[in-house]
Amino acid sequence: MPARIDADARRRDIARLAARLIATHGADNISLRSLAAAAGASTTVITHYFANKAEVLEAAYRASVDQARERVEALPGDDDPRRVLLLCEAVLPLDEPRRMNWLTWLAFVGAAISEPRMAELQRRRVAGHRELLTRAISAAKRAGRVHPDRDALDDARALLALVHGVASYAVFDLEDWPADRQLDTVRAFVAQLATPPAPERPGSKAAS
Amino acid sequence: MPARIDADARRRDIARLAARLIATHGADNISLRSLAAAAGASTTVITHYFANKAEVLEAAYRASVDQARERVEALPGDDDPRRVLLLCEAVLPLDEPRRMNWLTWLAFVGAAISEPRMAELQRRRVAGHRELLTRAISAAKRAGRVHPDRDALDDARALLALVHGVASYAVFDLEDWPADRQLDTVRAFVAQLATPPAPERPGSKAAS
Repeated sequence: MPARIDADARRRDIARLAARLIATHGADNISLRSLAAAAGASTTVITHYFANKAEVLEAAYRASVDQARERVEALPGDDDPRRVLLLCEAVLPLDEPRRMNWLTWLAFVGAAISEPRMAELQRRRVAGHRELLTRAISAAKRAGRVHPDRDALDDARALLALVHGVASYAVFDLEDWPADRQLDTVRAFVAQLATPPAPERPGSKAAS
Repeated sequence: MPARIDADARRRDIARLAARLIATHGADNISLRSLAAAAGASTTVITHYFANKAEVLEAAYRASVDQARERVEALPGDDDPRRVLLLCEAVLPLDEPRRMNWLTWLAFVGAAISEPRMAELQRRRVAGHRELLTRAISAAKRAGRVHPDRDALDDARALLALVHGVASYAVFDLEDWPADRQLDTVRAFVAQLATPPAPERPGSKAAS
């Protein structure tokens, strides 16, 4: 393997390992030293790939986003009638790898308060997924599976918020949110996209 | 004012101040010293009320929960047809005080990974609100405003997840989630409670 590709793969492996450590112990409880120990390497090896802890944290966050993206890219396209639901399933914490991704993301929610860089990474992750969902709902609308009067972007935004809420609860309380319940909840929301939108609240658009 | 009540009030005021500091700067960036400075007091005064930073953080979290509870307690009871929506409005970040409450809660999401105590506080906050929503939806069911075939607890759980997701996005991206959009999204969800539940996914209950 060429040295550059090898180095990229090694960096990615360390980032993924960091993501798992963060998901398990929290972002505050990871150091270059503990990461090196977990990787079975010296701190020098870690600092060869990452200048400091902040770089490790960002790479770990991105590695989790990449894992979610890989799952999304393996899905059938917008023509598939299951596409909207599959996009949600790809990120719901239905198994341990997806649960780990959420824990890594949620580990940085607090950091977004004081670090504009983390807030931006989070907004970008949400915006990326919202765009995919909007396109999928638009396609479902053209195919007659979603009511023609509905707004695809509004529905994508609401659906994604629901997924975020379900995931946020499920990772900390799997007993209350087993995989089946997560799926049923999202499925019920997607099912009602076939119905007309709720009537406008008087003046709601004018006031926004 | 009796000394004890005075002391309780002072402790609560400091906890509320801590909550605001956490919401603004993050939980990592608050210290007994910075809290004392913000309170215009000495560190000795702070340590008179709180043994250490962990106690301050927990008191701040609880102070935010108390503020939400006060808003909920001011609402009309289960007989009011707006009750379900009002329970959501009471906690959505529709204005600065409610936004501050969410930021304080979200500041501790990451801590819940490594601190069972924080995870427990979060589960309790969610369970408390879910119970209120379940009762309100049950009352709406008896009054014929919610479809008789629906499960009040399932709907409360899903609605609360939606509120959590909307709030989590809104506090970091108010442009994408202005107050009107938050309300419309939750309102649309509540409106469809009048319709029959989505048909069961084959085998979904048996598998859970």
